[in-house]
Amino acid sequence: MNKQQLFENIKRKRSFLCVGLDTDIKKIPEHLLTQEDPIFSFNKEIIDATADYCVAYKPNLAFYESLGVKGWIAFEKTIEYIKKNYPDQFIIADAKRGDIGNTSELYARSFFEHLGIDSVTVAPYMGEDSVKPFLIYPQSWVILLALTSNKGSHDFQLTKDENGERLFEKVIRKAQTWASDEQMMFVVGATQGKLFEDIRKIAPDHFLLVPGVGAQGGSLEEVAEYGMNDMCGLLVNSSRQIIYADKSENFAQGSKNEAIKVQQKMNELLLNKGI
Amino acid sequence: MNKQQLFENIKRKRSFLCVGLDTDIKKIPEHLLTQEDPIFSFNKEIIDATADYCVAYKPNLAFYESLGVKGWIAFEKTIEYIKKNYPDQFIIADAKRGDIGNTSELYARSFFEHLGIDSVTVAPYMGEDSVKPFLIYPQSWVILLALTSNKGSHDFQLTKDENGERLFEKVIRKAQTWASDEQMMFVVGATQGKLFEDIRKIAPDHFLLVPGVGAQGGSLEEVAEYGMNDMCGLLVNSSRQIIYADKSENFAQGSKNEAIKVQQKMNELLLNKGI
Repeated sequence: MNKQQLFENIKRKRSFLCVGLDTDIKKIPEHLLTQEDPIFSFNKEIIDATADYCVAYKPNLAFYESLGVKGWIAFEKTIEYIKKNYPDQFIIADAKRGDIGNTSELYARSFFEHLGIDSVTVAPYMGEDSVKPFLIYPQSWVILLALTSNKGSHDFQLTKDENGERLFEKVIRKAQTWASDEQMMFVVGATQGKLFEDIRKIAPDHFLLVPGVGAQGGSLEEVAEYGMNDMCGLLVNSSRQIIYADKSENFAQGSKNEAIKVQQKMNELLLNKGI
Repeated sequence: MNKQQLFENIKRKRSFLCVGLDTDIKKIPEHLLTQEDPIFSFNKEIIDATADYCVAYKPNLAFYESLGVKGWIAFEKTIEYIKKNYPDQFIIADAKRGDIGNTSELYARSFFEHLGIDSVTVAPYMGEDSVKPFLIYPQSWVILLALTSNKGSHDFQLTKDENGERLFEKVIRKAQTWASDEQMMFVVGATQGKLFEDIRKIAPDHFLLVPGVGAQGGSLEEVAEYGMNDMCGLLVNSSRQIIYADKSENFAQGSKNEAIKVQQKMNELLLNKGI
């Protein structure tokens, strides 16, 4: 999916919500545990309930890997299900990968060729040759960690260099020499508040993937105020708040209600921006 | 395995070699492709042939993930095989993971609880809370990326901050407030030459995991000269040079010969250091 198509979906659905499929076997409703593949059964119901109100799904690989082979099966089935039934959804493999060139190539092959996923999150620490192999697929996106939502983001990402440039700024600046805003997005945590203004100074046109609204305490209004651009430029992720909204057998309805609430707020924020 | 045990193994085997199980289905001998699980069959033979000459194995997860579910099965079987048959081998899951706290927890659970692996490589970009969940397992190690072997290591890792401290130095310094040298190692590429001296100034006692000897051009002698300490303090990894030493049906013998060559050099380097 290209940038214009993503924007069209946002306008049509009046939403820039990304639903995080961080599905934890310890947190899903108990009645699912008797099913053959409880994780996939859960995801399927969540997807069917929320697809009208979001434009993207983001499974975090850790939740699947932690179950070993079974988890990978559930992950692959989830990706296939979305692609087949909701081809207008942008899929993000939240993997935070990054390795030397020939190894990153294998990750890229796995996510883009084998699974046909739209995008993968990548960690920048190892530099250009760890990111570039993900960029040889012209239809696919790299979503590079820039300024994350967690407390530890302050440990290194805010470190100023000799010229006063902070590490996250250097990452965003350098990465723009590797790919355009048609193939790269940046992760910026919703908890970073006014720092979105600084990011928009150096990356005015890029889409930003924004985790940290909800359980982590970030504010959707603040993100929109400081981060939205003329093409929206935001994919705001919500995981726990939506997928665990209700623990009953009727859990999917709870998730749907929560997604609708977020979508309605997003509609207002888009209207405020004239979108 | 604790630090003293690792050192005892190094002294007993006269080797600080780590064999990288970067097993690529496109590079293994053709006759294996008819087997039920070619990746595991290859690994099994390589392990049996090299176990006497190395102290650690390091499968890089990318190579297994790129095959999807089948790859994960081969990975898990490989780990089980090493643990059962060669319990004195230190196992490194080269995964370069790192995510917000509650997600890193899941990766830690996967590698340490579910698979019983000794250590996992972790990327530092997201800071303390992305690393700490790996440290709650007292028998397990975090191997933190500090100064990697690839060209892109220059993009961010060498950036000097306002006080002249380079990012990799800050990572090593800060990480020492999170865990001791009994639970943490650092990745330092063999291609970094004299920078090992700088690293030993701030981390004199830590073990370093050193990739980049062989195909990537690093020198074992140089690494030993600038990086070895009184407990050796080095695990030098070789992947392609050993596992693809021979492409015939008799490939394992070729790998064995190559491992012996490296082990003999390592024996000399240990003797030079009085170990």
